[in-house]
Amino acid sequence: MEKYNLHPDRFFDPDASTRKYARDIYESIKDLPIISPHGHVDPSLFAENKPFLNPAELFIIPDHYIFRMLYSQGITMESMGIPTTVKTNKSETDPKKIWKIFAENYYLFNGTPSGVWLDYEFNIVFGIKEKPCAENALKIYDELNEKINSAEFLPRTLFEKFNIEVLSTTDSAADPLEYHRKIKQSSWKGRVIPCFRPDGLTDLSRKDWKDNLELLRKVSGREINSFDEFIEVLRERRKFFKSMGATSTDHGVFSPYTHELKSDEAENIFQRALKRKSTKEDARLFTAHMLMEMARMSLDDGLTMQIHPGAFRNHNDIIFEKYGADKGADIPAATEYTCNLKELLNKYGNEKSLTIILFTLDESTYTRELAPLAGHYPALKLGPPWWFHDSIEGMTRYRHMVTETAGFYNTVGFNDDTRAFVSIPARHDLARRIDSNFLAGLVVRHIISLQEAMIIAKDLTYNLVKKAYKL
Amino acid sequence: MEKYNLHPDRFFDPDASTRKYARDIYESIKDLPIISPHGHVDPSLFAENKPFLNPAELFIIPDHYIFRMLYSQGITMESMGIPTTVKTNKSETDPKKIWKIFAENYYLFNGTPSGVWLDYEFNIVFGIKEKPCAENALKIYDELNEKINSAEFLPRTLFEKFNIEVLSTTDSAADPLEYHRKIKQSSWKGRVIPCFRPDGLTDLSRKDWKDNLELLRKVSGREINSFDEFIEVLRERRKFFKSMGATSTDHGVFSPYTHELKSDEAENIFQRALKRKSTKEDARLFTAHMLMEMARMSLDDGLTMQIHPGAFRNHNDIIFEKYGADKGADIPAATEYTCNLKELLNKYGNEKSLTIILFTLDESTYTRELAPLAGHYPALKLGPPWWFHDSIEGMTRYRHMVTETAGFYNTVGFNDDTRAFVSIPARHDLARRIDSNFLAGLVVRHIISLQEAMIIAKDLTYNLVKKAYKL
Amino acid sequence: MEKYNLHPDRFFDPDASTRKYARDIYESIKDLPIISPHGHVDPSLFAENKPFLNPAELFIIPDHYIFRMLYSQGITMESMGIPTTVKTNKSETDPKKIWKIFAENYYLFNGTPSGVWLDYEFNIVFGIKEKPCAENALKIYDELNEKINSAEFLPRTLFEKFNIEVLSTTDSAADPLEYHRKIKQSSWKGRVIPCFRPDGLTDLSRKDWKDNLELLRKVSGREINSFDEFIEVLRERRKFFKSMGATSTDHGVFSPYTHELKSDEAENIFQRALKRKSTKEDARLFTAHMLMEMARMSLDDGLTMQIHPGAFRNHNDIIFEKYGADKGADIPAATEYTCNLKELLNKYGNEKSLTIILFTLDESTYTRELAPLAGHYPALKLGPPWWFHDSIEGMTRYRHMVTETAGFYNTVGFNDDTRAFVSIPARHDLARRIDSNFLAGLVVRHIISLQEAMIIAKDLTYNLVKKAYKL
Repeated sequence: MEKYNLHPDRFFDPDASTRKYARDIYESIKDLPIISPHGHVDPSLFAENKPFLNPAELFIIPDHYIFRMLYSQGITMESMGIPTTVKTNKSETDPKKIWKIFAENYYLFNGTPSGVWLDYEFNIVFGIKEKPCAENALKIYDELNEKINSAEFLPRTLFEKFNIEVLSTTDSAADPLEYHRKIKQSSWKGRVIPCFRPDGLTDLSRKDWKDNLELLRKVSGREINSFDEFIEVLRERRKFFKSMGATSTDHGVFSPYTHELKSDEAENIFQRALKRKSTKEDARLFTAHMLMEMARMSLDDGLTMQIHPGAFRNHNDIIFEKYGADKGADIPAATEYTCNLKELLNKYGNEKSLTIILFTLDESTYTRELAPLAGHYPALKLGPPWWFHDSIEGMTRYRHMVTETAGFYNTVGFNDDTRAFVSIPARHDLARRIDSNFLAGLVVRHIISLQEAMIIAKDLTYNLVKKAYKL
Repeated sequence: MEKYNLHPDRFFDPDASTRKYARDIYESIKDLPIISPHGHVDPSLFAENKPFLNPAELFIIPDHYIFRMLYSQGITMESMGIPTTVKTNKSETDPKKIWKIFAENYYLFNGTPSGVWLDYEFNIVFGIKEKPCAENALKIYDELNEKINSAEFLPRTLFEKFNIEVLSTTDSAADPLEYHRKIKQSSWKGRVIPCFRPDGLTDLSRKDWKDNLELLRKVSGREINSFDEFIEVLRERRKFFKSMGATSTDHGVFSPYTHELKSDEAENIFQRALKRKSTKEDARLFTAHMLMEMARMSLDDGLTMQIHPGAFRNHNDIIFEKYGADKGADIPAATEYTCNLKELLNKYGNEKSLTIILFTLDESTYTRELAPLAGHYPALKLGPPWWFHDSIEGMTRYRHMVTETAGFYNTVGFNDDTRAFVSIPARHDLARRIDSNFLAGLVVRHIISLQEAMIIAKDLTYNLVKKAYKL
Repeated sequence: MEKYNLHPDRFFDPDASTRKYARDIYESIKDLPIISPHGHVDPSLFAENKPFLNPAELFIIPDHYIFRMLYSQGITMESMGIPTTVKTNKSETDPKKIWKIFAENYYLFNGTPSGVWLDYEFNIVFGIKEKPCAENALKIYDELNEKINSAEFLPRTLFEKFNIEVLSTTDSAADPLEYHRKIKQSSWKGRVIPCFRPDGLTDLSRKDWKDNLELLRKVSGREINSFDEFIEVLRERRKFFKSMGATSTDHGVFSPYTHELKSDEAENIFQRALKRKSTKEDARLFTAHMLMEMARMSLDDGLTMQIHPGAFRNHNDIIFEKYGADKGADIPAATEYTCNLKELLNKYGNEKSLTIILFTLDESTYTRELAPLAGHYPALKLGPPWWFHDSIEGMTRYRHMVTETAGFYNTVGFNDDTRAFVSIPARHDLARRIDSNFLAGLVVRHIISLQEAMIIAKDLTYNLVKKAYKL
């Protein structure tokens, strides 16, 4: 076990002049408030403001970034306490046992962003002074557990300590947003807002599509027997989300194919879906059409539209069947944007009042498709490096590959996109450091001046994200 | 507004030893003559040798690299003076107003190659000592305008000052090359040569194909009623181009698919095209066949063959309809070479006397397909980083990704590929700096010696391009 | 001609602190034994232990890495002594003439991994003190020739001098492994083991498939008239290979598509193949099914399964017809893993006792598909950078692109994958240097500690490869 010693210049290039500039730039932005415009933190945390349950429940069990790596090395899901639907398998319920496995295998996170974030969380958020390992596992567990149960580490207190100006959750279209309502009605002043994500309703290939439609019917109190009614209810839900503070929508699709159907085509597909008779091709066309509809509504209601394509969800059937979704088994696939987005961009891409933020899991598209598209269409902006690419190398590659063609001002700052609330400051700190280091590299090669770099750094950290997400 | 201070070591790595070697290598090549074997400068510039109209006409209106970025940030095409076919829209005609918008938004080019080139043009070519911004916009405009109208800044004078040994334009197959003739017949000794580009005739899917055929008929004075006649006329045009100084042809295709048709297949497709009845598949096959024909003719007449695939031209229909082609709305798409080029390379790739220069907008093909192909087939060479990739990062990635498999000697030096004449020295200077820096990186890591690096630098800057393009 | 002076810090970053750490890490692993778990060295070398024939036969004629580059520059295969089946062409038989061409063109290898390996072989293995060039060609030839014929440079002596702990060859399924038997029965203690590669039998599109089946029939002494018999014989061959020391199988496929056929489907395809009536689609399905079968057998017999996909073999028909396979004309193509491997990974990927090692020639899949897959499935590990990517830049990119998502422990150390026996220490030395330098980069940016880096370095060099290949 090693002493923790988070270096003040960590993640900066070793060259002395680059490092000096990186430090200067970082110093100028490190204390800016955190804007978290897209993520998956559970709003009940802030509505209820209860202590976190225990270190295993806080750091391991809900975080697929963590248990994915442990699972890949042969550690069972059950031993990590992942709940299972299979009656014959029993998941570990002793958080200390789970924690011990995690600590023993902490070296697996060396060189990974999870390792970097965890180091920050343990050392800076929780003041742990040793790196976890087999020997100190239980000592650290106890230390964490004690802190978790103190007033200082309640969710709302951490929210303020983290200097979060606004945090967006991600919520299904039929969500009544009860926790958001509670937060709003409370005396607490933290700004936690929802984001409208209708994936469960726009993807006809999902087995739960009709269940989701039923939830939508219930929450809206309206019958949905036609495509027009469906669209009308979605429009109302967007309005409701907006009234609850939402400034954006989000669309997770396998392919970013966009295509406008004629109204009878859309209606026919919808009717087949109601009868559970829609085909694969129906589903493909329906999603393509719904992206067009969502853009049209965004033009009307002003919600910023996010598109997150390219993940093959639940690639491992056994894991999905036994443990459900979001269990570390989503795998990216090659994604095509130039042809797939043509219809959407031709119809809405020239609109200056619309903002479409595009993400990718396929880095080969940065220089080939995404930067050229964002460097042309006024409505289109590029989201930050996402998921597997939200990392030291991933963020560095992003800036190197995107900036020359799209510039800085067709990007929108950082997203933490996390369900791990206490990792938020760690993730934003890392992003700020990587951007500072990238800008220092431009200064030291005399491409821009230090003064310009500092202006850009503030824009990347704060101004661009507020503008793109209308926060 | 900041003072310009173009650093003598700009773009070199900050490490002191790398920087020292980079400087030494760069010093050894910086004054070599410029060979510009592929580009889009208008030959009338040198035929007429008139002063440039004004700074907006020189730097902004004809350069889609520039207005693309401004358009992406919501600035209208009209306000930048881009001519439009739509009668209700009026384009700005006051060059000072256009210039002001440009200057106010000059910060958008920070970190982009356009920014780097413009800095060079303003500071080094025109001696401007401040970076453009809102405050100094008109002062700089006036300064530039005065210079533009002095004898020192006439096109031919700049050509000589830039130390250009030869400049190739790009010309459609039916072009009578009148300006080239005027240049040849003038007393001026500058070498400006044409390049044969028959895209308008080899792509049956273009709406102007029959118009282009008619132009070909007129310029050749021959009837073209069969595929054989078509081929024969193209052969004659190549001969004419060669007599006017051309040493190369150029082929812009969406896909580099190559396939030889049987003569009756080609004839049938051609006849359908004459009747405007050709299909998409006809067009695909025809282009594939024409690449084979062009290679065969190159083997005969010795013209170096360039292939520029992978751009989805005029992706934004609204922009195309209102403002025409080349308006910043061409977007790259994934490109396949290994299978698509098989027929061409099997038939002609083993010919030592033939040179085929291949370009890409899809960097994922550098290590996967292009370097392995060029590292095997004697006829095949790799063109330099093209368009979006003609940049600090793009050129650096190219050398890092291509060199190990293709070596230096299966590449062909630099192309500026520009229509912005005054950017030519800026672009060549940047390329020389990036190559010097790359080679310095090899020296400092003890992969090659400084002496070897200097030989390679000269080959990359001067010898390889002259050899590949037979200049 | 330049003096050789292989720098002790070669290939390390120039930054002083990075270089110091790199050196420290490298020093800690440089003398570890070589584990060569996958390659193409001819086992007869060690069975017979005869001197190498001459420098041309040792360095040039059998090594497609070398003559590929020379051929790309217009040097004929005949002049390099490559044997040809064409009676009218005569291949050069004077090794000195071949050597002279090679030496004159040695500069072509500047900046390539071949150049780096050759420098090591000449300078360190053979003690040559000048870099080859036209002037010193014959002097160096004589020096090499003399050494080759001394006892010190016999294959077994070099094997020991290179500190090779184990070397795996690659052998077709029908190979009787006679040389392996001889080595085992000799008094020599070197560990040379076979690897089971049934490509000739699993790819129905090969012209020699029936010949290979006949060889299998002969070596097994069994009739093979049904798919079940075919499978049974393969199982027995695996058993035989295992008894001869094999710990792995290897599968070279164009596409890594996997799919389990029903038993009658497999039987029908097999019967069509016996009658030479199988289709392209039959071949595609058969290979997909055989990958499933091989995984199943690996789960039974414990042999580690390697998959090497993505090479378009014999892309140049003329070269293949005149000179045969493995002549530098294999070209990578884009490769899809996420969808293609789904069936295999769903059925076998969760098995902890199975190891499947996946390689790629398509670097765009590192971050997009391979690292996410290996970062989840327990059975899956990523092989090292392969073929064109086994290079300074290629290995560096691999670590940068793979580590953050897959970690270090889902990789399996280095493969030299070479048929050039004397290049083995050069290749392993390079890999160790690049890994040391990469780890130093993590240390200097305070991502991991030097102590952690040293542990990882030893794991990458020695422990992980032994574990993955069960050596």
